[in-house]
This record gives sequence, C-alpha cells and structure tokens, in this order.
Amino acid sequence: MDRSPHIAGRMADIAPFHVMDLLARARELEADGRRIVHMEIGEPDFDSPEPVIRAGIRALARSLTHYTPAVGLSALREAISAFYGRRYRVTVDPARIIVTPGASGALQLVMGVLVNPGDEVLMADPGYPCNRHFVRQYEGRACPVPVDRSSAYQLTTALLREHWTPRCVAALVATPSNPTGTLIPQAELCAMAHFTSEQGAVLIVDEIYHGLTYGQPPETAAALADNVFVVNSFSKYFGMTGWRLGWIVAPAPWVREIDKLAQNIFLAAPTLSQHAALAAFEPETQEILDRRREVFRERRNALLPALRALGFDIPVAPQGAFYLYAGCGAFTDDSYAFSRRLLEEAGVAITPGIDFGEFRAASHVRFAYTTSTEDLREGVERLGRYLA
Amino acid sequence: MDRSPHIAGRMADIAPFHVMDLLARARELEADGRRIVHMEIGEPDFDSPEPVIRAGIRALARSLTHYTPAVGLSALREAISAFYGRRYRVTVDPARIIVTPGASGALQLVMGVLVNPGDEVLMADPGYPCNRHFVRQYEGRACPVPVDRSSAYQLTTALLREHWTPRCVAALVATPSNPTGTLIPQAELCAMAHFTSEQGAVLIVDEIYHGLTYGQPPETAAALADNVFVVNSFSKYFGMTGWRLGWIVAPAPWVREIDKLAQNIFLAAPTLSQHAALAAFEPETQEILDRRREVFRERRNALLPALRALGFDIPVAPQGAFYLYAGCGAFTDDSYAFSRRLLEEAGVAITPGIDFGEFRAASHVRFAYTTSTEDLREGVERLGRYLA
Repeated sequence: MDRSPHIAGRMADIAPFHVMDLLARARELEADGRRIVHMEIGEPDFDSPEPVIRAGIRALARSLTHYTPAVGLSALREAISAFYGRRYRVTVDPARIIVTPGASGALQLVMGVLVNPGDEVLMADPGYPCNRHFVRQYEGRACPVPVDRSSAYQLTTALLREHWTPRCVAALVATPSNPTGTLIPQAELCAMAHFTSEQGAVLIVDEIYHGLTYGQPPETAAALADNVFVVNSFSKYFGMTGWRLGWIVAPAPWVREIDKLAQNIFLAAPTLSQHAALAAFEPETQEILDRRREVFRERRNALLPALRALGFDIPVAPQGAFYLYAGCGAFTDDSYAFSRRLLEEAGVAITPGIDFGEFRAASHVRFAYTTSTEDLREGVERLGRYLA
Repeated sequence: MDRSPHIAGRMADIAPFHVMDLLARARELEADGRRIVHMEIGEPDFDSPEPVIRAGIRALARSLTHYTPAVGLSALREAISAFYGRRYRVTVDPARIIVTPGASGALQLVMGVLVNPGDEVLMADPGYPCNRHFVRQYEGRACPVPVDRSSAYQLTTALLREHWTPRCVAALVATPSNPTGTLIPQAELCAMAHFTSEQGAVLIVDEIYHGLTYGQPPETAAALADNVFVVNSFSKYFGMTGWRLGWIVAPAPWVREIDKLAQNIFLAAPTLSQHAALAAFEPETQEILDRRREVFRERRNALLPALRALGFDIPVAPQGAFYLYAGCGAFTDDSYAFSRRLLEEAGVAITPGIDFGEFRAASHVRFAYTTSTEDLREGVERLGRYLA
C-alpha cells in the first residue's frame, strides 16, 4: 500500500512565489523591531478610492450580496463598455465583456477555453509568474521566449515567428509588462494579432496595468482584431486588489464557452465587488486615480536615476506599471541570494528575478515603487550604503 | 487557414446549467407581467445575516481591501478551527484550513492537486452538476455512479468497491446532497475513508449544506482520517452566496501544494468577505441562522407531503439542504420538457433532472424550498391544477 500522498504531476511544475519567503522573513525581522523598506510588493499602497468604498457600503446596506449571472452584472458590463468608449474611443459590445474573479479568474477562463493538453502558448520571459501556470493547469505547455532590451523586454512579431510551432494556439503579451513596466507599440500589437490570426491562433493581451502609464496613454487591443482576448482588472489602476475583480473582452465566438466555464468553476465574481466597481468609473474616482498616477510617475522619476546611479542596469526606461526591472550583474551572479542578503543586512525587500522566469533571472531583480517617496529614498540610501 | 474558432476539447464536455434557460424564460414571462413561483433556485432567499453585513461595513470603513495570504486570514482560519471545536467537538489544526473563493474554488484546488490526466474520481449520479466538470477541467474522468433510493441516493462503500478502478484517485461525496438532501451516516463515511485509504486514494466530503439539517445534526468528516478532504462554504447555511467564500480542511501533506496552487490561480479569496465572515461565528449570527434553519424545516415539512400527495415519488425523506428530488415518472418521460411546460402553463419554475447527471434524469426534477411558505403553497396549488 502506497502511503506517500498522491499529488498530481502538474504540482511539480507549479512554483510558489519565491518572494513570499522573503516577505515572511521581512515580517519576522519587523516583529523583532527592525524597520524594513518594502520594495517587493506588487500591490498599490493606496487604499481603494473613497467613492468605491462608499458604493460598497451602500450595496451592503441594501444587502446586495446574492449571486449575479456568471458573466457579471449587466450594469457593470455596460459601464466597462462605456469606459472603452470614453477612454479609448473604441466600441466594445457589452456582450463581449465577461466580469471575472480578478484577472486571475480571467486568465483561467481564457486558457480553459483555448488550451488542449500539449497545446503551446508563447509568452515573454521575464513575465508575470502565474501566466505559465495557467497554461500548465490545463496540461498545456507554456513556451517562454527570452526577451531583452533589444525588444524592450517584449514579444514582437519577429520573435513569435521565430518561436512559433504547430502546437501553438496562442501568444500572451502584457502591456505594460510585469516585471519590466515596458509597453508594446500598437502597430506591433496589430502585427502580432495578424500573425497569430494567420496561424489560426489567438493573441491574449494583458492590459491590467493600463491607466498606470507615464507617457502617451496606450491604446487598447480590445477592438484590434477578431482573434484578440483582452484581460483587465480592477486591482492595479483602480486600486481594488482584495476585491478580486477583473474582466475579459473576448471575441464573440468564445463568449458562450467562457460563460459555460465560468458558471461551472466560479458561479460568478463577488457580488459586492461588482456593485462597488460601478463607482470606479465615476468622474470623482477618475480624478483620484489620475492624481495617484502622478504620484507613481514621480516615484518612478526619482527611483530610476537613483538605481542607475548605484550601478543597476535599467536600459529601457519603464513607461508603465509600478516596477523597475534591474540588472544586478555588477553586484552578484545570484539575485536570490543577493535579495536575501539585502533584506538581512540592509533591511530592503525586493523580488528576485527567478519569480519571473529563467532567462537571466539570476542577474535581475524587480523593484516595486508601491511605497512612499520617503520610503523609496530611504531604500535607495540603504542600498547605497550596502553596495558601497 | 482555419477560420473556425479554436476551442479546447474539454468544452464539449462542460455543460451549461439547463436551469439557466428556464430561469431566463421565467424572467421573460415576469417581464410580461406573469407571476412565477420560483422553486428552481439553489440559493437561500434570506439576505446575509445582519451581523455579517455590519462586519462588512466596518471592514470597508477601515479600508480592509488589500490582498490577504493565499490560504486566507489567520484570524478566519482560527475562527473556523474554533467552530469545529464548538459545533463538532473535534480538533482541526488551523494550519489545515485553507480559505477559498467559494466551495467552487475549494473543489478546483482539491482536484488540481489530486487529478492527473486520465485519473478517475467516483461520484454519485445524481449529484451537484459542477463536480464532474472540476475533474474534467484537469483532464481527469469523472465516473458517475448511479444511486437510487436503496442507498438514500448516496455512495456507499459497497458501491465504491463495485465501481473502483486502478485509475481512481478519489471518491467525492456530498452530505447533505444536492439535489437529494440526503445524508451519509458517519459509520459509512468512516468505512469509505478506510476503503479509499486502502486504495492509496482520498475521500472528498462536501459538507456545504451542513447546518441545514433537520434531524440529529451530522458529524463532520474533518477529523475522520488522514486521507479525507472536507469542503465547506459560507454560502448556504451562513447565507453568504455572493461573497464567494468557502474553505478546505486538507490532510497536512497536501496543504503546501494547495497553497502553491491557490497563490497562482486565485492569489487569494476576497478580502472583505473574509473579514465579514468572522462575524458568521458570533452567537448573534448563530441564533439568526438557527431560526432560519427552522424556517427551512417547516417548509420541507409542508412541501414533502404535498408533493407526494400530487403523485411525485420521493421515497427517501430528505434530512438536509433545501431540496426535494422527486420522481415525476407518473407525469412524463421527459423531465426537461415537463419543466418547460410547467413554467409556461402553470408559472412554476423547477429544475430538470438533467442538471444533476444522466441516471434516470428524464424522470426526475428538483424542487428548491428557497422561497416563502406562501409561495410554496401557491406553487403546490398551481401544480395540482396543472396535473389534475
């Protein structure tokens, strides 16, 4: 009789976030009275905007906590559609919008309706760590494509062409990217949509850091082509992480399938979050969010030259999100050990490259500017002393 | 170039809830001014208990909307552990409790860490429709075992033995069951845990309707054996459906794997729901819930004889949940068409058997007593006139 626990094979390929160990250690140090500067956390330090909080309280007072349709409240789908009209000047039929439990739920649904066992999905390395696991979850194969400064750490049509195989069913891109903060030009997105369409495949565009960009606002891929899935979220720009709410803009032929899968694996996204999210599009909220974006911009503008001056290699200035992906080859050839030492000896928490893939992971780290300007300044000073 | 949309093979096996079409039609009829008696809805008609609502409002006022750990707030895991101590007199280490986005999230995680492609999971037919899809999601094979009055519509050790194959990694049972409302005696659960353990497999016990039972309260399987997973939820007994919150009690060797998968596919359960759920265990809430249970009991006690008198075959009196699973062979050999006619001609919405499996589905329907006693009386009168 086999007494070792039966654990599915996929779990050997599904990695925990390595930064969680660092975060746990940081909390230990804090419990001992050490002050830690947190530059590892992928969550805005701002609370949810006041109008959203108030809308949540109103919804609770009205007991709006029963199930919604699996694809979300009609009113919210329409509000998201209207948002595309106002912000991007594109028309997106509300019927193509599926409200999901976070962008995580969105990616689960998209991969679930697309990926057969053995199917391949191209994605950038470095990239968001969970992306490859959503593919693995469905017994597909995530194919990381090494990207570097030459393409601003993004996939390109040329890279897709180079790495494409007959088993590829999709390419997944993120603009702005986590961890690199870089964007994909709209013309390149368009070319990638065209290329994948020619292959009978789809393009999945993660736009969850839209709204947090610091130059010309990016266009959306939501109306780009009929083989494009857009994934978005209320977490980052809208500051609603713990509400677990996101959405998909899906091409019409897949909507019914996504609805079916959502019914079965989620029932629906959290009801209260959906009601509160209606307030995310009010002018008052938009003003708050725009002010916050300016704060993020100032932090980036301060942190980028400071890290460069210390010797971190950041060849492409990030245009969005709240991350700086930095080469640390001048200091170490083991970025995980470097991150641990930095925490123990300098009291600065950052994320090692290994959380974002394998390509040059040991010589890269990610800095998040999701903490106050004062904290960032303190963090840079500590780094300076430590590296001196 | 293939222009038909690429859709993963699993989606051909993942069925929508047929009752959704009936519900949509019911809403159309209501929009036209018809009054419909809803006996199809698997959601308590009560709002979330007041103390839970108030706790939600307090949490919002404190902006408690950031991410929690993937396994849930420590305080909530401890509160659930304490609940097992108070209600069931069993000790469950909080470290074995994983807070999830609903029981749906719980079942996704459990299947995700257990099921390899081709692995089989035994489950009762009729049963909760999504169960087989959670297995299919991971390329496993759900093996429905026909159950009838002879086993109170539940799996037994004898049935497991009869249907077991070398590819079986788990058996999934629900007590009380949806759609039948029947229970599994603790001795039988214990024997099933023992049998599955002998096979090197696990027993998954869905206890989401615990608390809604109308005789001797059932014991929990949470401390029964070291190969038992318990899935529970704040939706039904606690009246918190749209909050999307549930939990797993997992055997210790699987906890780390479940944590890893939850990090990647969910990040965490909704934060606000977790804070509000702390109030679900307060004495004031428990009193409200106990009163509601008595209301459900009265409804069952009124509806069961009324349906039997009309000629519906309900051979085993349901001891829990809020469902009556009824043979309608006296009236039809197509329960779906029967349900549609009943809606159109009598204005009564019920759920056809096909939503719960294939075994004798065409001669069964499910009545939910999730509406007022007056509505149930009206529904029975309409049924009586229609069937006369």
